[in-house]
Amino acid sequence: MPTKRIEIVQDILNVNDQIAEETNALLHTKHIFSMNIMASPGAGKTSVILRTLQELSPLVRCAVLEGDTAPVTIDAEKVSGIGIPAIQINSGGDCHLNANLVRKGIQSLDLDALDLILVENIGNLICPASWKLGTDMNVVIASIPEGDDKPYKYPNIYRGIQALVLNKIDLKPYVDFNIQYFKDGIAALNPGVEFFEVSAKTGEGITAWAEWLRKKIHDLR
Amino acid sequence: MPTKRIEIVQDILNVNDQIAEETNALLHTKHIFSMNIMASPGAGKTSVILRTLQELSPLVRCAVLEGDTAPVTIDAEKVSGIGIPAIQINSGGDCHLNANLVRKGIQSLDLDALDLILVENIGNLICPASWKLGTDMNVVIASIPEGDDKPYKYPNIYRGIQALVLNKIDLKPYVDFNIQYFKDGIAALNPGVEFFEVSAKTGEGITAWAEWLRKKIHDLR
Repeated sequence: MPTKRIEIVQDILNVNDQIAEETNALLHTKHIFSMNIMASPGAGKTSVILRTLQELSPLVRCAVLEGDTAPVTIDAEKVSGIGIPAIQINSGGDCHLNANLVRKGIQSLDLDALDLILVENIGNLICPASWKLGTDMNVVIASIPEGDDKPYKYPNIYRGIQALVLNKIDLKPYVDFNIQYFKDGIAALNPGVEFFEVSAKTGEGITAWAEWLRKKIHDLR
Repeated sequence: MPTKRIEIVQDILNVNDQIAEETNALLHTKHIFSMNIMASPGAGKTSVILRTLQELSPLVRCAVLEGDTAPVTIDAEKVSGIGIPAIQINSGGDCHLNANLVRKGIQSLDLDALDLILVENIGNLICPASWKLGTDMNVVIASIPEGDDKPYKYPNIYRGIQALVLNKIDLKPYVDFNIQYFKDGIAALNPGVEFFEVSAKTGEGITAWAEWLRKKIHDLR
């Protein structure tokens, strides 16, 4: 990469991190816990979010920022459909959300009426890893049919996460997936990351994951 | 995006397209048909490639360029394991292959001993769409568990393809996937794209897809 390009990219990342810090500080003054949810396309981010919100609300007051590369409101409508505030963020074709897009999204929310903001990033296992959004925590949602070798092939995204949610465990009988191999791959990159096996379809495992999240929200208050 | 950044990005894309054209011309002088295979992580690119090569070789002399974001040789070893030349291309963390990486990979192959080069791009439904590699054709491999809404959410990658391979149809009984809705989404972006339903696991549908590919190779010779 030519030096000039490196410098410009570095400038953009520095500005991004500055905005992310400001966002996080703002959310903390409002006692809001926030989470950046990353995944491959089709891992089931929205389905896991919907199940999680059904478990947490109304006691936990939630909102969702829905990242999309195109002006489609499919996911935002699913969240609104269960009565949770959802803001659609269109990245304009970009392969990841950034702190500025998230800050703009947050400006549309009533922060005094919230305990939790979930940010659903663009479906991508590479680019989102480099961009801080100002959230308290990064989570990857993986899924059984994606295969057990993903931590070995896309290592960067697993390095900066605090929890891994393995979705679609209802498909385990029909797919070759070695959970120990998958876990070993993550442990080599990021030892001690929290690990949850769930099925957004059947609801299996959602309670344990939601309880862990509820404790994180409680600890912040 | 600041003007200086737009100019630099444009320069890089222009150089990329120039290299892609040179690569395509070189492959045509050698009567080699080439294909850029794109997909979400875990859609089954390598598994479909393996099944396709087993169907085509040895009559069609094949090689594979295996794109990875990390220095892992999992996929390249699978291809080498069935006796097909495989070159691993490490993108160094980048979210897509580019024409220069592909040109370098091709330099390691004996072009006089080949009819077909398959390029397995990085698992990503966004970034690879913008980068020409010098191949004759772009293909997306989608998969049933990813969900039927992907063409609506990641439209750009479906616009520039000539064929769509829908993999993992063996999982259809266990997943809600409306094939007509999926097809309608693609048709709205790219009418007339060839469509194949396959299962790399059971082999279903592979022959029809491989025959279509064999005809493309034949037409070039």
